Amino acid sequence: MGPGPSNVSPSVLEAMSRPLVGHLDPVFVKMMEEIKGMLRAVFLTKNEMTFPVSGTGSAGMEFCCVNLIEPGDDVVIGVNGVFGTRMVDVAERCGARVIKVEAPWGRIIEPAQIAAALATCKPKFVAVVHAETSTGALTPVEEISRLAHDAGALMVLDTVTSLAGCPVRLDEWGIDAVYSGTQKCLSCPPGLSPVSLSPRALQVATSRKKKVQSWYLDVNLLASYWGQDRVYHHTAPITMNYALHEALRLVLVEGLENRWARHQRNHKALKAGLAAMGLEIASQEGHQLWQLNAVRVPEGVDEMATRKRLLTDFNIEVGAGLGPLKGKIWRIGLMGETSNLANVCACLTAFGQILNDAGRRTDTEAALAAMGQSN
Amino acid sequence: MGPGPSNVSPSVLEAMSRPLVGHLDPVFVKMMEEIKGMLRAVFLTKNEMTFPVSGTGSAGMEFCCVNLIEPGDDVVIGVNGVFGTRMVDVAERCGARVIKVEAPWGRIIEPAQIAAALATCKPKFVAVVHAETSTGALTPVEEISRLAHDAGALMVLDTVTSLAGCPVRLDEWGIDAVYSGTQKCLSCPPGLSPVSLSPRALQVATSRKKKVQSWYLDVNLLASYWGQDRVYHHTAPITMNYALHEALRLVLVEGLENRWARHQRNHKALKAGLAAMGLEIASQEGHQLWQLNAVRVPEGVDEMATRKRLLTDFNIEVGAGLGPLKGKIWRIGLMGETSNLANVCACLTAFGQILNDAGRRTDTEAALAAMGQSN
Repeated sequence: MGPGPSNVSPSVLEAMSRPLVGHLDPVFVKMMEEIKGMLRAVFLTKNEMTFPVSGTGSAGMEFCCVNLIEPGDDVVIGVNGVFGTRMVDVAERCGARVIKVEAPWGRIIEPAQIAAALATCKPKFVAVVHAETSTGALTPVEEISRLAHDAGALMVLDTVTSLAGCPVRLDEWGIDAVYSGTQKCLSCPPGLSPVSLSPRALQVATSRKKKVQSWYLDVNLLASYWGQDRVYHHTAPITMNYALHEALRLVLVEGLENRWARHQRNHKALKAGLAAMGLEIASQEGHQLWQLNAVRVPEGVDEMATRKRLLTDFNIEVGAGLGPLKGKIWRIGLMGETSNLANVCACLTAFGQILNDAGRRTDTEAALAAMGQSN
Repeated sequence: MGPGPSNVSPSVLEAMSRPLVGHLDPVFVKMMEEIKGMLRAVFLTKNEMTFPVSGTGSAGMEFCCVNLIEPGDDVVIGVNGVFGTRMVDVAERCGARVIKVEAPWGRIIEPAQIAAALATCKPKFVAVVHAETSTGALTPVEEISRLAHDAGALMVLDTVTSLAGCPVRLDEWGIDAVYSGTQKCLSCPPGLSPVSLSPRALQVATSRKKKVQSWYLDVNLLASYWGQDRVYHHTAPITMNYALHEALRLVLVEGLENRWARHQRNHKALKAGLAAMGLEIASQEGHQLWQLNAVRVPEGVDEMATRKRLLTDFNIEVGAGLGPLKGKIWRIGLMGETSNLANVCACLTAFGQILNDAGRRTDTEAALAAMGQSN
């Protein structure tokens, strides 16, 4: 129940124990096509250029930056947590001049802030982190995307934690470049980063003046392997693709809308239970993530000792706060397979026990009752 | 029996089906330390900075280049196949001026060629591909490494296909930066690239004037996660590390020298059998890889049809030739788990059958007898 990796279905684990085939084997090539098709279904896009990059989510972030940015380009990046901060660093290493649009950690990036930034520059792209895993805030992106396009910029979106846990609609929202991770709401082990480029973004990447600075992440080369030519580029992580194939199949069997609703339901149950214990969600009201709950550490409670005891006595992992939120929040993940009522119940019970042992009168029964009545 | 991924031991497959833990979980942190220790044992090095990069072998190549090269640096790269060619491209994308030292595909890079190049420049590093997977040639590196050091340069080595299949002795040979792959003689699925930096190479990477152009591959950041600080960088591919841990354990249980000897033995068996059929190894005599056998396609035999029939009728994958060797060789891998006499026997039998069906009188029994007498 940390910020990822989430738990993985037994059938995904089983898929990884299948014998290896080659990266150009007809069986694997067929699987690549199915993965691309299922990723399009999960991203809600028709983008041809939709496939998994052979690295974790941060490699997907770098994929978007190295392919779209040329030295000297302006880019606008929303910074309201670890991952926006990281993207600034990645973009600057690509030679971009970054115009930062900042919000306090835990709050969203407002469209008006983006509009103000766009009045000062002519950026190659506007980027925001949809679901900030470090803070638990979900930034709405439709209006920001409209503003970006009106300014002639591409719209880039980090969906590492949002994809398959809450609505992500690439084509409807006009997203041009997106990356995600496998180890959050897709419930697949970490190791791949699903990405998608709109025809407009692909056009930018294929008509660059300067070569992409990363050979490993150059979409001009990757397109020949993941496209119809099947030209060898690098040896794809076969086993990770077996896992992603099965994880995507499970997402589509459940149905995207059902999956989103499940994440919402279990978030509400956890939130109601925590509230009955006097614990509250720290991120901005109205924009709290369903899949990652940032819980404020109450005055006088030892943040780290609580987290350690959850792990050792209750076998429950929760995440620590990062940066300015260090010591101030716990991050409780309800992602993919991990998002179920049994976990919510176990988590509330464990917190109740630990807080009671620390001398705080905590009514676990009331919390479980509130959890049950939340839906 | 292609050029990798090689077959994987059942216990490695089983390791990948274990439940996920977090990338900062104490259990995983302990495993990271064990992986680093076992990698040092396999690389025969004391280098502290020895760990797996979260990408395939080409990401390891890029790791070495982005961390060591600053724009404007000279580097000397041996080019005698696909992977030397690739390294030139990667290095140029880092802003290096590359001095190429070329040899025909299938032949080795000679120390005298490196010495001649070193007389013309003052490079940051000299790099060669130890085992060229695209051609089947093994370039000896001890003398080249001495020449590099005498010229004040670092020595960089690609050991993607050599590691654990034939002698690789980092410290004895004075290698400063090395990368490998998991899917060759380590017999672990593709997805990680073991790397190692000598203290001297690390010093170069940590005292750069300009930030490393890749955030994902920046050793200055990775060192904080793989070192003692355990600062979160990216979410490590947990499952792939489970697999590598088990694969390395199996290598050390067998013993490095035993494993090298097994690869040599099975190569000799295959070569003897092929010779009895009139088939020969195309790479330079005296420098032929044990783990990757480049077999010359005889006049009048259809290269691609043979390869397809091997796969469909005999369930044997072999690789095609690349670049100037396209259509001219088959590449038969005897790597890691795949290197055993049963596979050599099956391969010879299948080739015998196919060649006979194509109207060439091929004495399979003589080939199998030669195989048996080869040791």
